[in-house]
Amino acid sequence: MSGSKQLKLGAFMRPVSIHTGAWRYPGALPDANFNFPALKRFIQKLEQGKFDAFFMADHLAVLNMPINALKRSHTVTSFEPFTLLSALASVTEHIGLVATASTTYDEPFHIARRFASLDHISDGRAGWNIVTTSNPDAALNFGLEEEVEHDERYVRAREFYDVVTGLWDSFADDAFIRDVESGIYFDPEKIHVLGHQGKHLSVRGPLNIARPVQGWPVIVQAGASEAGRQLAAETAEMVFAPAGNLEAGKALFADIKKRAWIIGRDPESIKILPGALVIVGETVEEAIAKRKHLDSLVHYDSGIASLNGALGYDVSGFDPNGFLPEIPETNAGRSSRERIVALAQREKLTIRQLAQRVGSYGGLSFVGTPQTIADEMEKWLIEEGSDGFNIMFPFLPEGLNDFVDKVIPELQWRGIFRKDYEGKTLRENLGLARPANRFFKSDR
Amino acid sequence: MSGSKQLKLGAFMRPVSIHTGAWRYPGALPDANFNFPALKRFIQKLEQGKFDAFFMADHLAVLNMPINALKRSHTVTSFEPFTLLSALASVTEHIGLVATASTTYDEPFHIARRFASLDHISDGRAGWNIVTTSNPDAALNFGLEEEVEHDERYVRAREFYDVVTGLWDSFADDAFIRDVESGIYFDPEKIHVLGHQGKHLSVRGPLNIARPVQGWPVIVQAGASEAGRQLAAETAEMVFAPAGNLEAGKALFADIKKRAWIIGRDPESIKILPGALVIVGETVEEAIAKRKHLDSLVHYDSGIASLNGALGYDVSGFDPNGFLPEIPETNAGRSSRERIVALAQREKLTIRQLAQRVGSYGGLSFVGTPQTIADEMEKWLIEEGSDGFNIMFPFLPEGLNDFVDKVIPELQWRGIFRKDYEGKTLRENLGLARPANRFFKSDR
Repeated sequence: MSGSKQLKLGAFMRPVSIHTGAWRYPGALPDANFNFPALKRFIQKLEQGKFDAFFMADHLAVLNMPINALKRSHTVTSFEPFTLLSALASVTEHIGLVATASTTYDEPFHIARRFASLDHISDGRAGWNIVTTSNPDAALNFGLEEEVEHDERYVRAREFYDVVTGLWDSFADDAFIRDVESGIYFDPEKIHVLGHQGKHLSVRGPLNIARPVQGWPVIVQAGASEAGRQLAAETAEMVFAPAGNLEAGKALFADIKKRAWIIGRDPESIKILPGALVIVGETVEEAIAKRKHLDSLVHYDSGIASLNGALGYDVSGFDPNGFLPEIPETNAGRSSRERIVALAQREKLTIRQLAQRVGSYGGLSFVGTPQTIADEMEKWLIEEGSDGFNIMFPFLPEGLNDFVDKVIPELQWRGIFRKDYEGKTLRENLGLARPANRFFKSDR
Repeated sequence: MSGSKQLKLGAFMRPVSIHTGAWRYPGALPDANFNFPALKRFIQKLEQGKFDAFFMADHLAVLNMPINALKRSHTVTSFEPFTLLSALASVTEHIGLVATASTTYDEPFHIARRFASLDHISDGRAGWNIVTTSNPDAALNFGLEEEVEHDERYVRAREFYDVVTGLWDSFADDAFIRDVESGIYFDPEKIHVLGHQGKHLSVRGPLNIARPVQGWPVIVQAGASEAGRQLAAETAEMVFAPAGNLEAGKALFADIKKRAWIIGRDPESIKILPGALVIVGETVEEAIAKRKHLDSLVHYDSGIASLNGALGYDVSGFDPNGFLPEIPETNAGRSSRERIVALAQREKLTIRQLAQRVGSYGGLSFVGTPQTIADEMEKWLIEEGSDGFNIMFPFLPEGLNDFVDKVIPELQWRGIFRKDYEGKTLRENLGLARPANRFFKSDR
């Protein structure tokens, strides 16, 4: 079946799981967010399963929720992405390492440098998930009294991307001569001073690290709003925007690839990998029962807090048995709010039902046997709903082990997932070209 | 000889070496700043030698020197400290990991979080070398047109330290209950919102990571100016201020310990570990010859550039065969400038001679046999010149291997250096107490 379309798979990770109730699930590791050896086992298992990437989610504040919900949340403590992924780099050989980093609350010089360093340390396995950070509490941790407005965050993000990629190109790929005899370490014609002066940023450069192994680490983007999709079309190589079902997936897939095509990019140079929660059972009924058990571990206080967070608006004052009122425009991620409002209307959910759904993960999920899960994934692949998925595991390690031991072999048997890594770098495994240096031609 | 005073030893590292000519030395690895496997071998050798810490120097810009000197410098590319030390954390078990991080060009929330994360990943081996970054080119990489003035940088550093340590104390040590039955993850009475509002910084908190394993990572400080010494006395647990000879070392030792005592700190809670370049030979003559060979590999263009950098003032227009003119007050590290002016006057060096010395490393060095080197170190220890040293290796791997294989056994035989690690954390190995949480009492 060689030559057929191939799924790309990332693992979208929080140490304990992305699911609020996961830490209480039988066999789970409630302390995984303190437990580096556990994370090491997780990533090594993913590498055994030939995953493209380990994708580390992030937040720049303790999530904004009432204390009676917060006290139930394992999200208040987690490893920081750069330290975690760097530590995992030296205990793995093939799997990509995607770190979330904010363009609103960090400096392009730091971001460019850390990703370049991670790329050198991992021999070409780094990826940058560009986020603009919609969380008013994050602003307060960085000296701002008020959050930067949604669209302005995206304007800054675009400029930030230009600066970071420009800094990565500070040295030509072949700049470093290291001629011991003459004492010349690098060719002085092959260093570039960026000298960026823009609306939001002023950065001189050059970056004090050689060009990354991949040229540029792989660019990942998750925004699904108008501004988010446009940023993705212009910059992203992997898109993680959510798609709740196949129809939504197809629409997103077509939209992003078309936007890219319009500005002259090859649509194949962007891989669309929406997030998907996968729960595996011996039978479909067993898988559904696992999910019900997992969701039952989410307290209502946590559910309503998650709903408020996702909406960027406090609805806890309304009757939980009534329907969602009109929600005013807020500064929260626009696409998240719109998706939840649509879900409530489509399924006619009360606020209580909606809170339980959102609190327990309200997005795309595949719940079934390895065969039914593979059926769904194959359908998405063939019908151009996506190029693959960022898999979310419901609980760890069981959910992860089930996926690697049961679903991966099924996908491999069908010829839609690799049996071994094709390349050495994340970029090569994803089938992405190495970007040329914008300031220097190279023979490399 | 148990109970006698014990040396503490850090390794002050740049991947290729701190010496400008090192990459050209026979057997050196000119590509070590690209070569993670080499760094892994270096740190594992240091751990075999029972070193307290691997101490990673840093710069936030390509060093400011003319292109004809820059092109000879291996410093233009290096791994970033957090990514490097995290990657090294997972291939070591005992050695401390000290990262340099700037209080002028970073955010306390990021710094607190990364060090906490590194401390959790390494099981209590992180240390923070607080620097204020005296480099006008760094300012230009972070959107500032002009460098922040020297003393103001130290005012901000002090406030930054208060914020970072406050953020580390966001959770009580025993906050995390993880009670699966009741669904309570942490005790809501044991989270603290910092709410800092100061002259330079405004940071709400809490930090989104549990208190570090060490309570606080070990605090390291290198400044030797008046402001730097005072900051060290108030905050540092390891002092890396330079001391060019034993008399200067004794004066620094006495001054810092006294300053600490005056403000109520136990002088034993600060370990003074000046940097020392160590070159080992079978005979003293062979060691001196190694140094001469090494220094001869530094080009004059590099020497004058280093001198200008250290002075914060361009003296290349003056007659190289004349003496140093009066240097006006600059924004560069004050202590560095004063030390060099004193060296020139003491040894009556011309600008050329001074440039060659500074370009080839002008600070404290021990050049001799394992016995003569151990004699000098023991003298420093006994006469209270220092509590130990941050060793700089002249070239790698040879200089490092020589130290571990030849000098360490001599120090151990004399009973002034450990044969095995005493504790599990860096703090325990250095003999430092675990700081109490300023917001919570704990039984831990």
